Amino acid sequence: MDTAKAVALRAKNEHFSWKDCFEKFANPFSDEIRAEALPVLAVTTTSGTGSHVTQASVISDSINKEKLTLFHSCLFPKESFVDPDFMRTVPQTTTAVTGFDAMCHAMESYFNPRANMLTETLSLQAISIIVETLPLVLEDPENIELREKLAYADTLAGICLSNAGAEAPHPIAETINGYFPKMAHGETLALVYPNYLSHASTAIPNKIETLIQILKNYRPSKDTGSLGELASETMKDFLRAIGLDKPFTFAGDKDALVQELKEKLFFNLPLTDSKQMQEILAKSL
Amino acid sequence: MDTAKAVALRAKNEHFSWKDCFEKFANPFSDEIRAEALPVLAVTTTSGTGSHVTQASVISDSINKEKLTLFHSCLFPKESFVDPDFMRTVPQTTTAVTGFDAMCHAMESYFNPRANMLTETLSLQAISIIVETLPLVLEDPENIELREKLAYADTLAGICLSNAGAEAPHPIAETINGYFPKMAHGETLALVYPNYLSHASTAIPNKIETLIQILKNYRPSKDTGSLGELASETMKDFLRAIGLDKPFTFAGDKDALVQELKEKLFFNLPLTDSKQMQEILAKSL
Repeated sequence: MDTAKAVALRAKNEHFSWKDCFEKFANPFSDEIRAEALPVLAVTTTSGTGSHVTQASVISDSINKEKLTLFHSCLFPKESFVDPDFMRTVPQTTTAVTGFDAMCHAMESYFNPRANMLTETLSLQAISIIVETLPLVLEDPENIELREKLAYADTLAGICLSNAGAEAPHPIAETINGYFPKMAHGETLALVYPNYLSHASTAIPNKIETLIQILKNYRPSKDTGSLGELASETMKDFLRAIGLDKPFTFAGDKDALVQELKEKLFFNLPLTDSKQMQEILAKSL
Repeated sequence: MDTAKAVALRAKNEHFSWKDCFEKFANPFSDEIRAEALPVLAVTTTSGTGSHVTQASVISDSINKEKLTLFHSCLFPKESFVDPDFMRTVPQTTTAVTGFDAMCHAMESYFNPRANMLTETLSLQAISIIVETLPLVLEDPENIELREKLAYADTLAGICLSNAGAEAPHPIAETINGYFPKMAHGETLALVYPNYLSHASTAIPNKIETLIQILKNYRPSKDTGSLGELASETMKDFLRAIGLDKPFTFAGDKDALVQELKEKLFFNLPLTDSKQMQEILAKSL
């Protein structure tokens, strides 16, 4: 879907170089540059990226080892077809990583200060459905009712993301993916999330407590000290339940890698400044 | 807003008589008749009718003593302005009757079998906000934060209504309003609701239990026998809290009136057939 969106944008804007495109279409909530794209009909085959209901197109630049995003309201698909029947045979690992990606869209749009009453409600519903459904669908992959619930949650999460935006885990995970394009986006998000939640628990404690409440079946039995630690351990337990609790392994010079990746995170987000993003990245690798 | 919508439709469809219009534009979910309307910019001044986000235009026919509705997707306003500042000075009675109308949109769209996961969630949020906020705003009418919450709930309820549709209380109440146009729509709904809930509790007991749970502060202390009675008494308690617990008074021949009104309710709805609607009407007057 994201490739189709990028092609649709380029087809109507050939006067821009790709470099121009990534510079001009960098803000999810600004349409200062007037642009058109060919109409895109999106068909989801995973639950998912949410891209069928967002203004984003994520593109990997393998030469510069970057994963970049184009944003513009003309990148919303004209129509989207969400049929859980297409997800019936999605392999377990893909179901897990894409399902966790959708859950991250719901969590980050919930955490983001841009969230409003409507997106918060829908984000929380999407998180609740995924927490309940994703572990079950991994056990019973052809269950069409569970697949339908996940497809609905993915769609909700995408709607919330397109209105409230992502938070720090997405750019941190995408920075890692720029260097490790074979890792799934959901895998790099899983690396980052426990440490991110620990950070976010000081910035938005009430929202983190609500999240932990939804994840209550995954709360570790031993009493952890701080809210940050509890959030981090709870998330690790959930990631274990969906098979995404793998540590980062790297044969080369990890310190040099971390240093190189940190330099890519030079911008601030509403809840997380660049220094904090760099720290979360370093802890996660 | 509803008058503006009807005028906007007529301006583009002068080849239809008004009678044609009410016959052709009678189904909220059918656009079989291709039609255009002038673009309407809606500005809400109450919370409310939800009309700023619906495909409906409710029109009173004082000669035939009827309150009728035009439905077509071209009747969705092009833009709507919802500014709680405009509601700051709305009188108490108007706040109560319009607020209860919005709550009815949320309840009926929730009860309707056409409801889906998304509309059910939003309907329940709208009901919860109104149950919590409406009694408070009646005590503190200029509180802009409360007015904003009500305006949001009215908008949600309208969105749910436009997607899932109303149930029996709306046509029953509108039949009464056809004869008593000076009664507010929210007043006639208040007459009908306790008896309607009693009926609905056998058709959709789980949904009625969820509603009673939201209305828990208004549950009567004495133990009532059936779920229907409990729902009915709980609703009466809430109506008392917002000053809408007035009985129907009529100086003329009430039996003749009831008979005449019953004859207008000759169609079936998914949860309530015409005979049941006639019974609810008779009990409510």
